[in-house]
Amino acid sequence: MAEESTATAPPELTVDVAGLTALLDGTYADVRRTVRELLPSYAGVLEDAETMSRDAFRERVKDVVLEIAGTGAAGMGFPKEYGGGGDIGASIAAFETLAYGDLSVLVKVGVQFGLFGGAILQLGTQRHHDAYLADVVSGRLLGCFAMTETGHGSNVQALGTVATYDAATAEFVVTTTSPEAGKDYIGNAAKHARVAVVFAQLEVGGEGHGVHALVVPLRDEDGALLPGVRIEDDGPKMGLNGVDNGRIWFDGVRVPREALLNRFADVTEDGTYVSEIESAGRRFFTMLGTLVQGRVSVGAAGVSASKAALTIAVRYGLQRRQFETGTEDGTEEGAEQLLLDYGLHQRRLFPRLARTYALHFAQEVLAGELHDVFSGVRDDEETRRLLESRAAGTKALATWHATDTVQECREACGGAGYLAVNRFAALKADTDVFTTFEGDNHVLLQLVGKGLLTDYASDFSDLDQLGMVRFVAGLAVDTVLERTRVHRLFEQIRDALPGGKDDWHADSGLRDPSYHLAMYRFREEHLIGGVARRLKRGVDAGMNPGEVFSRVQDHVIAAARAHVERLVLEAFVEKVASVPEDDGGLRLTLNLLCDLHALSGIEADRAWFIEHGRLTAQRSKAITREVGELCRRVRPLARELVDAFAVPEALLRAQALIGGEA
Amino acid sequence: MAEESTATAPPELTVDVAGLTALLDGTYADVRRTVRELLPSYAGVLEDAETMSRDAFRERVKDVVLEIAGTGAAGMGFPKEYGGGGDIGASIAAFETLAYGDLSVLVKVGVQFGLFGGAILQLGTQRHHDAYLADVVSGRLLGCFAMTETGHGSNVQALGTVATYDAATAEFVVTTTSPEAGKDYIGNAAKHARVAVVFAQLEVGGEGHGVHALVVPLRDEDGALLPGVRIEDDGPKMGLNGVDNGRIWFDGVRVPREALLNRFADVTEDGTYVSEIESAGRRFFTMLGTLVQGRVSVGAAGVSASKAALTIAVRYGLQRRQFETGTEDGTEEGAEQLLLDYGLHQRRLFPRLARTYALHFAQEVLAGELHDVFSGVRDDEETRRLLESRAAGTKALATWHATDTVQECREACGGAGYLAVNRFAALKADTDVFTTFEGDNHVLLQLVGKGLLTDYASDFSDLDQLGMVRFVAGLAVDTVLERTRVHRLFEQIRDALPGGKDDWHADSGLRDPSYHLAMYRFREEHLIGGVARRLKRGVDAGMNPGEVFSRVQDHVIAAARAHVERLVLEAFVEKVASVPEDDGGLRLTLNLLCDLHALSGIEADRAWFIEHGRLTAQRSKAITREVGELCRRVRPLARELVDAFAVPEALLRAQALIGGEA
Repeated sequence: MAEESTATAPPELTVDVAGLTALLDGTYADVRRTVRELLPSYAGVLEDAETMSRDAFRERVKDVVLEIAGTGAAGMGFPKEYGGGGDIGASIAAFETLAYGDLSVLVKVGVQFGLFGGAILQLGTQRHHDAYLADVVSGRLLGCFAMTETGHGSNVQALGTVATYDAATAEFVVTTTSPEAGKDYIGNAAKHARVAVVFAQLEVGGEGHGVHALVVPLRDEDGALLPGVRIEDDGPKMGLNGVDNGRIWFDGVRVPREALLNRFADVTEDGTYVSEIESAGRRFFTMLGTLVQGRVSVGAAGVSASKAALTIAVRYGLQRRQFETGTEDGTEEGAEQLLLDYGLHQRRLFPRLARTYALHFAQEVLAGELHDVFSGVRDDEETRRLLESRAAGTKALATWHATDTVQECREACGGAGYLAVNRFAALKADTDVFTTFEGDNHVLLQLVGKGLLTDYASDFSDLDQLGMVRFVAGLAVDTVLERTRVHRLFEQIRDALPGGKDDWHADSGLRDPSYHLAMYRFREEHLIGGVARRLKRGVDAGMNPGEVFSRVQDHVIAAARAHVERLVLEAFVEKVASVPEDDGGLRLTLNLLCDLHALSGIEADRAWFIEHGRLTAQRSKAITREVGELCRRVRPLARELVDAFAVPEALLRAQALIGGEA
Repeated sequence: MAEESTATAPPELTVDVAGLTALLDGTYADVRRTVRELLPSYAGVLEDAETMSRDAFRERVKDVVLEIAGTGAAGMGFPKEYGGGGDIGASIAAFETLAYGDLSVLVKVGVQFGLFGGAILQLGTQRHHDAYLADVVSGRLLGCFAMTETGHGSNVQALGTVATYDAATAEFVVTTTSPEAGKDYIGNAAKHARVAVVFAQLEVGGEGHGVHALVVPLRDEDGALLPGVRIEDDGPKMGLNGVDNGRIWFDGVRVPREALLNRFADVTEDGTYVSEIESAGRRFFTMLGTLVQGRVSVGAAGVSASKAALTIAVRYGLQRRQFETGTEDGTEEGAEQLLLDYGLHQRRLFPRLARTYALHFAQEVLAGELHDVFSGVRDDEETRRLLESRAAGTKALATWHATDTVQECREACGGAGYLAVNRFAALKADTDVFTTFEGDNHVLLQLVGKGLLTDYASDFSDLDQLGMVRFVAGLAVDTVLERTRVHRLFEQIRDALPGGKDDWHADSGLRDPSYHLAMYRFREEHLIGGVARRLKRGVDAGMNPGEVFSRVQDHVIAAARAHVERLVLEAFVEKVASVPEDDGGLRLTLNLLCDLHALSGIEADRAWFIEHGRLTAQRSKAITREVGELCRRVRPLARELVDAFAVPEALLRAQALIGGEA
């Protein structure tokens, strides 16, 4: 527990809301403005979600998605020749801003334009682009992305749908081989998709070539199912009930040879399998890698949902009074204190607010890298792998953050937070699955961990968990560490990090970003080294790799998480450093938030830092005190800091109730 | 991160499910069995919640509540002469078991029989009992409990509804004095209540006497609102949409003098206020104290919801396979490992499972005390205050646990967890407000903290936060500590607690319950002492009490939480000790769960223990290893440990999907 600080009051900060919004909006301020202006026109969907039947709401959401497609806001990432905007960065910015509105609309946009359209764009070739993209972008052709199966959520390489080449007719025959191999949770499948991109094990001439994607028609123009296709509704869900998720089974469905999305592999008419990528695993991961935009988008949506939740909760905390405050002479006795004046309330909201800023800037860096890679500005295999790792990790952190923040904000608004009109009901229910779709967060962090341990070497891209265990166990621990770029990156800072009991006064330098970074980097490197050591020791002791992995799994994930936390902090620190010192109070304000983010992150994991000799008990307590102090400094800026997110007022349904006018 | 243990394998445990269920069911096994047999008859409500319109669902839930009333399962706590069962402990056991089913039904039962009926029983006298109770118990008269106001959630003493006595007509005039003084979130108000128990500031002859409760009719026999009563629907909520919450405004509504629930205070016909309790604050808290059953019930429901969630998640983890496992010789290669075999998955579910057991037994102790106090077995003022404190604290911990456990279980079931058919959607949405209603959890823990600091002395029962700050600041710190029973209780163990670096081998005695208890007790005492010191220092430094409280608030809450955690652990340890050693594997099994609960609790707060010199870094790591080891020991028992909760199969809708038959 913190003790009272005796520090003198810091200079008062003021926040230029418009300036801060401009900084947050960045390169794509125009795109964001356009979408913000679009959102109020369908703000009513938020209420429709509560009042309409599920069927009616699905139609309503579809109509809104088509409206949005009509404005061009959904197709910004597609080539201009097909009616798109030709700018991937813009498409992420638009999606992120759309996430202030109803999330069924957002996810249906994601399914149609990101997953379905994205797969055709990335995995297909000219013939597919010409055949489909213009209709995808305009919304004339609605489709779905049929990857996940009931029996195989995260392990896509093992899925059970099969596409067998029939050379006699030059067709693929698509079949669901078992009930568990039915496609599941497929958005747009239950109602609206006429076409699916189907992921299936490709079999040519009796030989399996791993998972590939094909375009398979599902319904005719009137929406009737085509022969051999069976579809079942996934039924009501916790949230996102405007999206028609369903299950699909294929019974010998025939599609022409050209239906194969053949950018990375093809089958010739006579039944010869050809691919420039020799390793099946590497080919698979290369294909998946082109779909990375989905993860970047979901992470962005998680940050936006957090912004909306914090906006509502902070405003509520500034209007609601609770219990009485007072001075010794009794003059204020009887007046109740604002909720946000309570230390605990600040502690609940402000570190999450600071982290939302941090994740915003981390998303900005990520979206920039995505844009550069997919626009060809900088595209090589190593850059792609780093991008995929960053996308996976940032998605995990951003979506967990959303789950946590929406929950805390709901509770911080008490009973009012429970009423649907105050938005938390939908925010909670709709975002809840973000931690699962586009890759379960734990599985994604395992992926990040694997990348760290194998240094993203493409030779190891097709290693599964057991392969990774064997690989790492086969190296000397030092070799593992030396292989990692983490090691090369941190070598120079390792000695610079203060640590033991004597080096530091307990509270000196607590707000120094180089101290924060050194702590985050130390943790990352130490955890990676520890994982390598444990994997090795487990195998050396004769345990089977599955058992070793099971035992070390939480450590792998902790290492991955530490890695991504470091990336997030670096993004924030670099952003702050890029703001001119004389730019009003902007830099000081961001600095304050960055300190709060960094220190509350260290505080949350302070047991680890103490256990590993990087914090004394005394300094740990000093950090807790400092976090409390930083929260008090954020307090007078809180309203401006959420206003800068610029969530359109029309979407803050809460206002009426929060204002107490009900 | 844990290292691999080199311990030899412990003896294999087997669990007698029926025996464990009998142990959990305890004294009221018959009542629980009756309710378990009743639940399947309306299991369909779980699906109705998704498919029916809100209006239709409200009617459906009302009908089910009336059916339950017809079986006698809802009125067990009322005197037999009014058709009740005359057994408060039985009523808690019934309510706890009903919580396995639809939670709108449960909460509507709670509103009608617990809040509304309970207020008439506890705050009223013979005339009210005779007039209402038989109709309440049978469900012929539905009512509501109108305490909370839009502007005053947690600060009931400050509410704005006024009841003025008019001696000329011997009536009270009930008036909502401002828009913010409208009653809000009132269950049963929007549709079904014909009568309300209304909490209002009593004014007699121009003098205010604080908050009292009156019976105020709202609607006539046909459901039409009576003159002066305005009611508005609270609208859709995150969950519990089968309960008709609403807002109520009163405009000069007149009720006879006899409408005052006059057990603790009355107004004579000529307008004289009389009460045996002189202090207004003490009177208020005495009245509130009689309503403690509501908090006990909500905590119980939180534990039941956690049991249902864990049952589904553990079964899912035992059916779902993910990625491949294998042995070095390749024989098992290609088989996928069960989710529950992953160390991380165990880490996510088993400490929560152990804690659910702990909270179950803590609830059992609490319900026993409630029964004894309200049955007159042991009823004095000190016992009541301890009961109220324990109820408030246990409610907070149990409901937070439910929020956390349902969330983690949902995520552990991935996409399947998001489908409504698998129950998490409703479990999450319906239980979410448990942390808020019957008292916001943070406010409840503040109450507990106040009790600790003032040693529950009745003289201080009407102290508000500022009063408490001033009171504590006025004492020497030693005096505060000496005043507390914590001090008296722990004096003897303080020296027995091992602590510093030299006393312990890092992993000796980790499974010794006296070690666990000593740690929990040390934390509690240390935190209380620290709060007292900080309050004193803040006031001494000239800060106003409001500011002092704001800064120390998180510390007060931490102290209260530590106190309740200690009570929970003691309940578990005592239960284990009460099981005969030769009773099959039952005692060993409970012992394992108790160790896991205790150690994962220390692990979660290990930073604090290290900071305060009670854990070395080395021993802290040993605890983390031990928690992993205990999880591995729980693994083979997991199915039996959730089966022992005996959630009726008909309520586990999830089964179909989880079995992969979909």
